[in-house]
Amino acid sequence: MDKYEQVIELAKRRGFLWNSFELYGGTGGFYDYGPLGSTLKRRIEQIWREMYVVHEGFMEIETPTIGIEDVFRASGHVGGFSDPLCECIECGEAFRADHLVEDELDIESAEAMSNNILEKAIRENEIPCPVCGGKLGSVYSFNLMFNSNIGPGNGKPAYLRPETAQGMFINFLRLARYYREKLPFGVTQIGKSYRNEISPRQGVIRLREFTQAEAEIFIPPEDKSHPEFDRYADTILNLYIENENDGSIRPTRLEDAVKEGYIAHEYLAYHIALTQEFLLRIGIKPDKLRFRQHKKDEMAHYAVDCWDAEIESDRFGWIETVGIADRTNYDLKAHTDASGTELSIYREYEEPETVNQLVVKPDMSKLGPAFKGKAKAVAEELKKMPPGELEKDNIEVTVDGEEYTVPSNMVEFSEETVKVSGETVVPHVIEPSYGIDRIIYCVLEHAYNKEMINEDEEDYRIVLKFKKEVSPIQVAVLPLMSKSELIKPARGISTRIRKKGVITAYDDSGTIGRRYRRNDEIGTPFSITIDYQTLEDNTVTIRDRDTMQQIRTSTDNIEDVVCDLIYGELEFENAGTPVAT
Amino acid sequence: MDKYEQVIELAKRRGFLWNSFELYGGTGGFYDYGPLGSTLKRRIEQIWREMYVVHEGFMEIETPTIGIEDVFRASGHVGGFSDPLCECIECGEAFRADHLVEDELDIESAEAMSNNILEKAIRENEIPCPVCGGKLGSVYSFNLMFNSNIGPGNGKPAYLRPETAQGMFINFLRLARYYREKLPFGVTQIGKSYRNEISPRQGVIRLREFTQAEAEIFIPPEDKSHPEFDRYADTILNLYIENENDGSIRPTRLEDAVKEGYIAHEYLAYHIALTQEFLLRIGIKPDKLRFRQHKKDEMAHYAVDCWDAEIESDRFGWIETVGIADRTNYDLKAHTDASGTELSIYREYEEPETVNQLVVKPDMSKLGPAFKGKAKAVAEELKKMPPGELEKDNIEVTVDGEEYTVPSNMVEFSEETVKVSGETVVPHVIEPSYGIDRIIYCVLEHAYNKEMINEDEEDYRIVLKFKKEVSPIQVAVLPLMSKSELIKPARGISTRIRKKGVITAYDDSGTIGRRYRRNDEIGTPFSITIDYQTLEDNTVTIRDRDTMQQIRTSTDNIEDVVCDLIYGELEFENAGTPVAT
Repeated sequence: MDKYEQVIELAKRRGFLWNSFELYGGTGGFYDYGPLGSTLKRRIEQIWREMYVVHEGFMEIETPTIGIEDVFRASGHVGGFSDPLCECIECGEAFRADHLVEDELDIESAEAMSNNILEKAIRENEIPCPVCGGKLGSVYSFNLMFNSNIGPGNGKPAYLRPETAQGMFINFLRLARYYREKLPFGVTQIGKSYRNEISPRQGVIRLREFTQAEAEIFIPPEDKSHPEFDRYADTILNLYIENENDGSIRPTRLEDAVKEGYIAHEYLAYHIALTQEFLLRIGIKPDKLRFRQHKKDEMAHYAVDCWDAEIESDRFGWIETVGIADRTNYDLKAHTDASGTELSIYREYEEPETVNQLVVKPDMSKLGPAFKGKAKAVAEELKKMPPGELEKDNIEVTVDGEEYTVPSNMVEFSEETVKVSGETVVPHVIEPSYGIDRIIYCVLEHAYNKEMINEDEEDYRIVLKFKKEVSPIQVAVLPLMSKSELIKPARGISTRIRKKGVITAYDDSGTIGRRYRRNDEIGTPFSITIDYQTLEDNTVTIRDRDTMQQIRTSTDNIEDVVCDLIYGELEFENAGTPVAT
Repeated sequence: MDKYEQVIELAKRRGFLWNSFELYGGTGGFYDYGPLGSTLKRRIEQIWREMYVVHEGFMEIETPTIGIEDVFRASGHVGGFSDPLCECIECGEAFRADHLVEDELDIESAEAMSNNILEKAIRENEIPCPVCGGKLGSVYSFNLMFNSNIGPGNGKPAYLRPETAQGMFINFLRLARYYREKLPFGVTQIGKSYRNEISPRQGVIRLREFTQAEAEIFIPPEDKSHPEFDRYADTILNLYIENENDGSIRPTRLEDAVKEGYIAHEYLAYHIALTQEFLLRIGIKPDKLRFRQHKKDEMAHYAVDCWDAEIESDRFGWIETVGIADRTNYDLKAHTDASGTELSIYREYEEPETVNQLVVKPDMSKLGPAFKGKAKAVAEELKKMPPGELEKDNIEVTVDGEEYTVPSNMVEFSEETVKVSGETVVPHVIEPSYGIDRIIYCVLEHAYNKEMINEDEEDYRIVLKFKKEVSPIQVAVLPLMSKSELIKPARGISTRIRKKGVITAYDDSGTIGRRYRRNDEIGTPFSITIDYQTLEDNTVTIRDRDTMQQIRTSTDNIEDVVCDLIYGELEFENAGTPVAT
């Protein structure tokens, strides 16, 4: 078993991750979070909220997972969110054409190949169906959005969202109002997104239904410095820049990374460092984390700069888990064009500015004969038009819903000095986009340890060394034996700890050694044991998961001690007197 | 404007609730949670988790929102989850046929009418299309699940789940294993569910995509007492039992409600009381909450007893917000039948029991000639069969995938005394099922107050009197004036409070009075003002939203004072010295 299999075996057996619909044979690309997995996920999401929502102040919103077609037409997903598909003519099985070509020709990526080129490669190399050996059909684009319909009959076409981002962009004007039209402001969303993958392999790494945590931060286009940049100026990041193709990771001080031009600007750099802080805090190992810059041909045409946080895993190598991009004003412009509503803010200058402006003077002696009763209205419309439009030879004007063409010789211009109190700004967008499920798998893998306890006896333990604040079960309460005189005080302690909001497992079955191991295996940081000494002097033992050391402490304020151990500054050594084990 | 309109106007304007996709004209049945709405929702969900997951110990799981057909075929949703639909022959608009009949004939509910009867009512009363006045077509059942396909081509049929419950039922065996096969155990899920409503009216009360919080609690069928029943024995509930048809609400002690047979048993009663505790804690008004028992003809045929928590609202009257039901073993049986996997647990007796058992004795002298080489295998199968099967005249036996019919005269029985160490149990299910969106609307409406401040000046304020622990913005930090000497310390205080995980709004625009009103309107419980005295003696004022009283206190540990005011026991009066206002 490689590490992935070991981790997944444990995850399934103990209730972290389960294949969905297994009762009915299962379906690829769907996973359930069991009791421990779901709780781990909640804790990780909570830390994300603490950092992005509470501390950064990017309020969270929640928009539907179902979206109407207009949204995804504007975003480009209806047209372009697809994979090349190829079906077997004989058995009907469907495959990613690029994957077939990659495997057959042993090339790293066929992603950039067009459908025609992929089909040619399949024909020329006579690539057969991997399932039945049959002949493969032609290559076509398969849209990866799940589709449905809203309402009865054929209804209104709808899609399950491929990302949470669009729900934030289309709310731009409302958000701007919420933030009183002051840049920068940010918004976040944690929720389900969907990709109807053609044939998902890679288990929990490639899901058809997955959780994203995304932030969209709207910043002034002309100033991408960050007011809190100093917070991370000295942070060291493992940068991986493939352009140089030396394949090595370069630890770089954040401030230097910006100064030397590796990272485009401070605002993006700040958010790369924030991403690192988050990932390390939840338990990603620093030496298994790197930031890879997108290559020019890989980056969207509108993006200024884009970095992926990649986490190293045993089976899958470096996994892309977070993208941090400067998307410029692309998304707001796209929805402005599609909706006809301008997504921008009006920014008042501190003091009105004096500017030279092109002022239009409609020549009524020419407009009058040409447009008769409408001439005055046409002139009014001309005065409102942006300078760019006025420079055309034929100016299009709409009056009462009808279009009129005004030849430029009917209009005169003059440059005048005017006072302007503000301007319209389309902000740029910084987007950190997290794939939560992949991150959770990596947290599990990085926490997974198989430790030899006693070499002679070949005694080992499996222990998930979670960070205390992400462990799903925070404390176990264990009566030494399953006797009522121990069970009763144990249950009492467990209730008191639960009242503090701490997730507590009570367990009285099996030997105490087995119960410690069971709790090691699910990463419970502390185990409290109630024994016969408890009945005499009101003390219990607390065992530390990682060191297996034990201390003895009073039951009087045990619930506060537990809280201080988990959330506070209390060191284990200082929580009681050591017990020889 | 009625109260609904006032609440929704405020909710839209301030960022609680927004119509989805408004940029593209909108679509009925979808709402966005804005920054304040989403945060309110998070807090309410968090309290729900604290009560159900942490305190009750019902661990949370997370299963996909997309489900495969098998699941919903077994649950009955493919066959029966539909509304009667009727389309206009002329304009094509679709309507709920039962609503058309209700409106036309002025009857309270046409829900129980069949499609044929509805169609007859439409014909006989010549009900026209409410939109164009045209003729209405025939009435047919429209399935309310959104459908889609998994994978390319026609793919595998799939549905968006109509409830979160099924994802828990199909994981029963894994959950039983997690809980070491000991009843009772419970599991919870908070997540999106979907109903493709025909033409949703009632705004945020009837959504096509909505959030449920559900618990499935598996209990022994023979013992429905609750070990913690005493906790709620004296709790008074407003019971509303329509059978008696007196239309009045009857405040009843919980223990009496069980003893007098209103509520079927302790376990259900406990969960009705827990529901009440939750709803009151998040701010539902006690006099606007009642529990309505389902009438016999309204309750599912398999259910023992079912109650709805109903909350009174200005426009919609009593809104169903939570259902609390004893669903017996219906769901587990349904999935057992459909999947062929027995969803039950094996319960060991404390001591082995001696029971009389029907023991089968296959008569080999008859089986041999009849089944030849298979006779021995047939006999082995017969020995494994449950007694019920053996009592049939012709017993069906499967050997190596083939079916054989054994006439009963080839088998003899004897009753023997055997020791049995345990038994197979199919638990019963207690299900509290919350509609979170409706509850959130009710919390908003019950918190909404329009208060006269000064009658002569017709000065009033709108204030959302949220419970402190659900207020989205927990504290506002306001420099008295927008001057840098006040802004700097204000920002410092705001950062220190945020570090405690408290959502803090910093606001320096407008007069202080206007800013207080703005914060009243979104329910911020406390506002801290930094004024010129702050610069002299390091004190600030704190204003209480509800009383508008102010106290003055030191800035030294202001972040702890705020936490104690919000989460702790600290009374406002004791947090500083009163300020005359």
